[in-house]
Amino acid sequence: MLTFEILKTSEETGGSTPSRARLGTITTDHGVIDTPIFMPVGTRGSVKSVSVEDLDHCKVQIILGNTYHLYLRPGCEVIDHMDGLHSFIGWNKPMLTDSGGFQFFSLAKLAKFTDAGVAFQSHIDGSRHVFSPEKAVEIQMILGSDIMMSLDWCMGYPASERQTLEAVNKTSLWAKRGFDFWQEKGAVNNLFGIVQGGMYKPLRTLSAEQLTRIDFPGFALGGLSVGEPKALMYEMADHTLPLLPVHKPRYIMGVGTPEDLVELVGMGCDMFDCVMPTRNARNGQLFTSTGTLNISNAKFRLDKGPIDTDCNCYTCQNYSRGYLRHLYKSRELLSYRLNTMHNIYYYLDLMEKMRAAIRDDRFLAFKTEFYAKRQT
Amino acid sequence: MLTFEILKTSEETGGSTPSRARLGTITTDHGVIDTPIFMPVGTRGSVKSVSVEDLDHCKVQIILGNTYHLYLRPGCEVIDHMDGLHSFIGWNKPMLTDSGGFQFFSLAKLAKFTDAGVAFQSHIDGSRHVFSPEKAVEIQMILGSDIMMSLDWCMGYPASERQTLEAVNKTSLWAKRGFDFWQEKGAVNNLFGIVQGGMYKPLRTLSAEQLTRIDFPGFALGGLSVGEPKALMYEMADHTLPLLPVHKPRYIMGVGTPEDLVELVGMGCDMFDCVMPTRNARNGQLFTSTGTLNISNAKFRLDKGPIDTDCNCYTCQNYSRGYLRHLYKSRELLSYRLNTMHNIYYYLDLMEKMRAAIRDDRFLAFKTEFYAKRQT
Repeated sequence: MLTFEILKTSEETGGSTPSRARLGTITTDHGVIDTPIFMPVGTRGSVKSVSVEDLDHCKVQIILGNTYHLYLRPGCEVIDHMDGLHSFIGWNKPMLTDSGGFQFFSLAKLAKFTDAGVAFQSHIDGSRHVFSPEKAVEIQMILGSDIMMSLDWCMGYPASERQTLEAVNKTSLWAKRGFDFWQEKGAVNNLFGIVQGGMYKPLRTLSAEQLTRIDFPGFALGGLSVGEPKALMYEMADHTLPLLPVHKPRYIMGVGTPEDLVELVGMGCDMFDCVMPTRNARNGQLFTSTGTLNISNAKFRLDKGPIDTDCNCYTCQNYSRGYLRHLYKSRELLSYRLNTMHNIYYYLDLMEKMRAAIRDDRFLAFKTEFYAKRQT
Repeated sequence: MLTFEILKTSEETGGSTPSRARLGTITTDHGVIDTPIFMPVGTRGSVKSVSVEDLDHCKVQIILGNTYHLYLRPGCEVIDHMDGLHSFIGWNKPMLTDSGGFQFFSLAKLAKFTDAGVAFQSHIDGSRHVFSPEKAVEIQMILGSDIMMSLDWCMGYPASERQTLEAVNKTSLWAKRGFDFWQEKGAVNNLFGIVQGGMYKPLRTLSAEQLTRIDFPGFALGGLSVGEPKALMYEMADHTLPLLPVHKPRYIMGVGTPEDLVELVGMGCDMFDCVMPTRNARNGQLFTSTGTLNISNAKFRLDKGPIDTDCNCYTCQNYSRGYLRHLYKSRELLSYRLNTMHNIYYYLDLMEKMRAAIRDDRFLAFKTEFYAKRQT
């Protein structure tokens, strides 16, 4: 079972939005995670284009695996035979797996949600499968992740209040069934509950009330960053985060941009995951302290400088924008790795800087500097 | 100017084919190369999918760049501005560039060969260009390679004797003009001549006679491995290698399989390049001490072992066949890098083992063992 220790809670009140940021540590069987933390996404047993050593270099402390993808390929038989996902992929630090809920919403074909669970067809070969809340936990136990997620029903945007209420109730029912199954199986590793409720504050409140009745070691907000306006996402997070137990980790799923991380850390969120740093890297979009740049831009053709002079990542320490532009324009495979290493490093470095700012009681000043630099 | 020192020439005579293998060193401005050596191909300023540190790990001592590709993209202006190819790509060990001759034969559109040089259209955008023998050297001087190659006219297979003779004569004419240009420009770095002559021994002899009249610091055999039967390739190499000066490096271009390297080292060849280890890696074909395997094969699904239990490469030390199969089947970008590292390591390790065998007067025994192991 994980332990979560809060080392400091921000008490800064200057400015219009006081900081509720928290500094902490989560201790798991595979090591300690400093919070707030960002988790790169390793969908199919690999954070796309990088190795585990690259992740170490990028200060990564925990990665995310997608249960839906891994269940379909290579399948549980393979991962079980290979002694779990850590062993299979060679990553010996903490790992979190999702439940598949988001993929049933975003990727699977013809997903049908019933009290029993989700019936769906594989996006790869159309084969038919059913995930029950128990099965979602069972598969994640085979994967052996340090933090497993309850099966949830994720709504798109917009969604009607009636539909959203149905998803909230189903999510709560499934959460309890998954939790009970997990307890029966010895409560190995950890299982987090996921709060839904779409863009309706009363339903977010209802979902949080229902979920927090179950003694999960941590809670997540799901169903955000599904197409809603940014302000609405912040509003939902700001409304819901205070409804979660103070002494347990709080995780916002699938979020977000560097700005999102800064805002949501300020609201007291501890964990994040998003494909943005890795996916955008493969599209040539690179994050820097002064904003984002597209490496394919012709202005970088003769540029001898690094992506970001403030960055200590492998890519910035060794390669010029001119070379990175050439690699990207030539679709060289090395391009994806070098871009990805930079973006992951940027995200993890940002989290480290936020942790330092919370520790030193200057999180609000950090936020001000962060935005000032980006506007230049 | 390079220095080539022959440390040992094999004098083993047991078996049907006596060994003429040589052990040596080539010293260049960017360091020493142990010969016989294999040079991985970094066509467009990157050995596909791997970094320079990966190449170091794989015991790579010299890489090859393709002048035709680099001239078209990113272009000489960029590489000149970036202070040469070494600086641009971050590789500080020796580098060889070809002249473009092979690409005019294999890749460019509508190449026209005249006394003046080659007129061609870019395979990327159809733009029109002309390479003269002087220009081929001039471009390579901008690239800054340690070993430059003369512009040559490469024939396919089959080719008529008349056509091949024309190519031989043109190649010799161009070689002299390129050499004179190189001398005028201060004879920086090194320029090798390329022997052509197709599959006609008298024309190979003629080409070798014409070329070796010019005081190149090294010589290559071109126009091999262009579709001819393997036995014919060996016959041509065996015929031509002894016609080249003993005290200068001998390089067979675009060859070959592990078996080819073993055979041709035995004939006294010192240098090789080929896309085979890198290209085949990206197609899932991996070289091992017992033969080649295709990692996509279903039999590797639950295989916990490494690609090759005899291999000390990064991939074999860290990953199972089962995981590598999953990465390959999932088209994960990491697959290409891990496979490529293994194959390059295999090639360089094979060269190292051959050098040790020559040093210890057991090259013929090494050959016997090499083939025995592959048949099991």
